[in-house]
Amino acid sequence: MSKITTSIITIGDELLIGQTIDTNSAWIAQQLNAMGIWVHRRVAIGDIKKDILEALEREAAVSDIVLITGGLGPTADDITKPTLCEYFNTRLVQDEGALRNVLHIFESRGLPMLQRNVDQSMVPEACTVIQNRRGTAPGMWFEKEGKIYVSMPGVPHEMQGIMEDYVLPQLGTHFQTPAVLHQTLVTSGMGESFVAERLTAFEAGLPPYIKLAYLPSYSLLKLRLTAFGDDKVVTAAALSIQFQELKKLLADITVADQDISIGEVLGLLLKEKGKTVGTAESCTGGQISSWITAIPGSSAYFKGSAVTYANETKIKLLGVKPETLAAHGAVSEETVREMLAGALRLLETDYAIAVSGIMGPDGGTPEKPVGTVWMAVGDNNRTVTVKHRLRYDRDRNIQMTAVFAMNELRKLILQ
Amino acid sequence: MSKITTSIITIGDELLIGQTIDTNSAWIAQQLNAMGIWVHRRVAIGDIKKDILEALEREAAVSDIVLITGGLGPTADDITKPTLCEYFNTRLVQDEGALRNVLHIFESRGLPMLQRNVDQSMVPEACTVIQNRRGTAPGMWFEKEGKIYVSMPGVPHEMQGIMEDYVLPQLGTHFQTPAVLHQTLVTSGMGESFVAERLTAFEAGLPPYIKLAYLPSYSLLKLRLTAFGDDKVVTAAALSIQFQELKKLLADITVADQDISIGEVLGLLLKEKGKTVGTAESCTGGQISSWITAIPGSSAYFKGSAVTYANETKIKLLGVKPETLAAHGAVSEETVREMLAGALRLLETDYAIAVSGIMGPDGGTPEKPVGTVWMAVGDNNRTVTVKHRLRYDRDRNIQMTAVFAMNELRKLILQ
Repeated sequence: MSKITTSIITIGDELLIGQTIDTNSAWIAQQLNAMGIWVHRRVAIGDIKKDILEALEREAAVSDIVLITGGLGPTADDITKPTLCEYFNTRLVQDEGALRNVLHIFESRGLPMLQRNVDQSMVPEACTVIQNRRGTAPGMWFEKEGKIYVSMPGVPHEMQGIMEDYVLPQLGTHFQTPAVLHQTLVTSGMGESFVAERLTAFEAGLPPYIKLAYLPSYSLLKLRLTAFGDDKVVTAAALSIQFQELKKLLADITVADQDISIGEVLGLLLKEKGKTVGTAESCTGGQISSWITAIPGSSAYFKGSAVTYANETKIKLLGVKPETLAAHGAVSEETVREMLAGALRLLETDYAIAVSGIMGPDGGTPEKPVGTVWMAVGDNNRTVTVKHRLRYDRDRNIQMTAVFAMNELRKLILQ
Repeated sequence: MSKITTSIITIGDELLIGQTIDTNSAWIAQQLNAMGIWVHRRVAIGDIKKDILEALEREAAVSDIVLITGGLGPTADDITKPTLCEYFNTRLVQDEGALRNVLHIFESRGLPMLQRNVDQSMVPEACTVIQNRRGTAPGMWFEKEGKIYVSMPGVPHEMQGIMEDYVLPQLGTHFQTPAVLHQTLVTSGMGESFVAERLTAFEAGLPPYIKLAYLPSYSLLKLRLTAFGDDKVVTAAALSIQFQELKKLLADITVADQDISIGEVLGLLLKEKGKTVGTAESCTGGQISSWITAIPGSSAYFKGSAVTYANETKIKLLGVKPETLAAHGAVSEETVREMLAGALRLLETDYAIAVSGIMGPDGGTPEKPVGTVWMAVGDNNRTVTVKHRLRYDRDRNIQMTAVFAMNELRKLILQ
């Protein structure tokens, strides 16, 4: 069976001038991959008719499916629909269902409707209209010379609704899809080169239809095995054998045997042990608790955090001693120890994480340059403190600190 | 003067299966735009030699500059360098500077060096080597038939270092770049269609070299004017006239007259007034404080937060009354009022934000469905409470709540 291939075309100047980061393509690729359809090209172009026509032609020449997002808003910078009419040699007509949807949305919001909203229910006559239950711009499904084209709005949750409701099931019945399966091992504590060295023989011994990829992610390294095959069960079995072998080879550095975040790893561990956690955050400003609570069901093990940015707040909420701050500074082993003890007392949790550092770009000194961070993790009996010297920008320093601290707590819980 | 055009090619399966979101392209586009170079295509392809060769040829045919990121790691899934050798008809040779850099990095980390690390200092003979001060893979600058090609590692901070140190200054001297200028107005409280209706005459009257784009972003709407021209001063003056007019037309809904986040808007306002803020967060789990502290210098106005996920934590830290929770529930106007008062008392700030809601996917009831959120903002004299009913997924509900709450406080401060 030959691979079913997809091109994603994203339309919009905001993607080209860097005002918007393209998250749609990643989401689409994940969904298609899960059903064995391969995204082999992504192309981003601006709101320019010539570029859109050229991209449609070019991508249809190399792919079975062309998915188009963006360029369908109610305002004047959108030229996608007229261009689709030209490409498919058709004209705009009003769609009853799309009009009802627009009317319904404006009625339920108690807003008057404008001509430009009515215009959103105009669609190329040659397409199958896909109703958008999350917004005013409908999706459009075209077929031409054996290729499938779908045009969708660029707003992520609208696009996702259209894909889930219609496009994915429709593609599933339209194509006999091959199996493409992934299994991912998350590791920590060993560099990419060293892991690769250890896996030399393993990699050389992989069958041709299974590929290994190295995906560094902050302080973690993800190893992904991908298998391709005609038969899903056979492919899954072959992948499983190799994945078991990979797990055995990397048992000492394994964080998780599925592709989950460090927040999810920690959450699963706490749930399994029936324990609770809280955080005392200075330099991360709530990033750790925000990541922990990003996970549905985290209320089972997360009770709260004290984000203590100011020294006076560290003293008042966490009981850090003014003498400690005066003698050692807010970024010190002594201070994070007292923050940790304070968090355990204040939040009444089994475990806690405390961090204090200088994330930049300013605030560094010769003794404590930008990037210096102290962290403490522990419970009422044990405390582990770690110092790091990070060398990135503010955002990345904050995120690295959060990942490192959560990983330290993970290790402590497992000891 | 004709436009200088760039294509960005990103190499790596992880971008095509959706495991990684492409943030590099947005960053590169921002940098190039600021110097008047236009990114008109972005293409993502996998680690496949044929696809890489094809993309190089195709993009060089339509662009002056081809920037390539990814595919240069020390592990076996990387085939970019041999493919570059084939494309530029050259061979791999060892670069002294790159080797010293690799040696230095391993020495400073106290790690032994492997053959595969040494191999990272091998480069195509035809290129100008760009040293990478943040990692082991060097950048490579090629020129061929009047086109410029630059290959860089995909790790964001390494790529950024190479761009800043060498590529951007080099492109600046190589091309006589036109002026491309943007000015952005951030608005709140009026839908895209209604703003467009109000701007009909304004838009029709814009000169052909100035474009208006509508960029919705959570509860905010950004209006971006882009001007192109040969002379930077003349172009800036023309843009400024139109931007002043736009500001006048939308004065009643303007949040900021520059492209900054709601956290930055709030920060500037607090700094200007010399006031402080803190948060009491339940459902947002620290997202609001994390966004406030993402801004360098936020310690001037942010003191801290009580992230109170558990009811007992709301009672203990913020003094929410158990009777209030029992009678009205954690997601209620009464509870967020008490959380707000508690935050002002506990954190001793001038203003505070309190939020409590059900972000999903579970936890909803018929009376309080998923997406129900109550927020309170205020100081010791005034409190404003607002209820929202959000309809998105957990992540988006959390982010919308954070934006809404920060915007409510902004409005209260300005009253």
